[in-house]
Amino acid sequence: MSESNTDGPELTAAQQAARDERHQDRMQRKKAVVDAAIARADKVRGIVVVLTGNGKGKSSSAFGMVARALGHGQRVGVVQFIKGAFSTGEEAFFRKLEGVSYHVMGEGFTWETQDRERDVAAAMAAFDVARGLMSDPAIHMVVLDELNIALKYGYIPLQAVIDAANARPAHQNLIITGRGAPAELIELADTVTEMGDVKHAFRAGIKAQNGIEL
Amino acid sequence: MSESNTDGPELTAAQQAARDERHQDRMQRKKAVVDAAIARADKVRGIVVVLTGNGKGKSSSAFGMVARALGHGQRVGVVQFIKGAFSTGEEAFFRKLEGVSYHVMGEGFTWETQDRERDVAAAMAAFDVARGLMSDPAIHMVVLDELNIALKYGYIPLQAVIDAANARPAHQNLIITGRGAPAELIELADTVTEMGDVKHAFRAGIKAQNGIEL
Repeated sequence: MSESNTDGPELTAAQQAARDERHQDRMQRKKAVVDAAIARADKVRGIVVVLTGNGKGKSSSAFGMVARALGHGQRVGVVQFIKGAFSTGEEAFFRKLEGVSYHVMGEGFTWETQDRERDVAAAMAAFDVARGLMSDPAIHMVVLDELNIALKYGYIPLQAVIDAANARPAHQNLIITGRGAPAELIELADTVTEMGDVKHAFRAGIKAQNGIEL
Repeated sequence: MSESNTDGPELTAAQQAARDERHQDRMQRKKAVVDAAIARADKVRGIVVVLTGNGKGKSSSAFGMVARALGHGQRVGVVQFIKGAFSTGEEAFFRKLEGVSYHVMGEGFTWETQDRERDVAAAMAAFDVARGLMSDPAIHMVVLDELNIALKYGYIPLQAVIDAANARPAHQNLIITGRGAPAELIELADTVTEMGDVKHAFRAGIKAQNGIEL
């Protein structure tokens, strides 16, 4: 902690005044840096966001951005590529909202079906829906949830995803989630977060629960 | 990509059959591992989730979990500790929903106010609201958004946060976001994600935009 005093010893009035002045100086310099960076960032276009890594938070982050987009009155399309035992509250939540076009791939997790041909057919059907959303200028944001898993298993050709991303309307934001994002997608993306798994309650024997995983 | 064939050469029928059988074997083994892990995770209690690191996705992930919780009919409390120029769509979105108690700290970013005493007073007022939510058994989930920033500047004593977290109702989930989470919070937490900043559109000169950052 850089300047924590609340847990430390009492300061004299003079020490407090000096500390507050240092704080003001530092914050003035920081404000100048932040303001300059904001002024430099003047390009306006839709971006590609890739959320990958093994840590918790990839899909939930995408759904938080859906909430933000809806807060601005935007229209959003969501395609969930892996659906199964881990069915989630966000489906119940977003399905009933205005402005969201929500699609869940018909099959379960790949280790539930154990049938490659059926998985490929379901993944490609979901991707056809995704392509429709990605070519619709009325849709401001498209979320392809767990697409990286379908790419990893080779259920969907990577090049088809890249082509659809490059051909989408200029203002459309595209969010792709799932561990193991291919290097070509990371290259294509504007913003990429690698979610590092520092700790997970599941490994400590705590059941997946409503609101967190479900 | 472990078994991508869709971009590769054509396979004979025999090769396809062999591939599909290998796929089925691997998925059967994976299912056994996953099912055993799910059976082992039998503890049911609220958890502490810490979302930290420099990458994009900390607050949006927390708000995605709020959406999940609401999808299950839970009641949620949100306190945003840092509010400023980067005002967000989630506020507009969640404020009008049933089941959410939403509070935004009155002051802007710390580099906007440049006044330490005012920042401390605002942070402590926000933390008092948070403590109220964290002691209310009717609230299933509490989000303390950007709390780590307030801890970093020493605006709120870390021990007070730890005490409130330990005293909360057993079923309540607590989500804390912000870069630079202190080691003691990571120790206390059940699930911790470190969001790694691989790439950010802002650094490429692209303006922060509705639905993504705003």
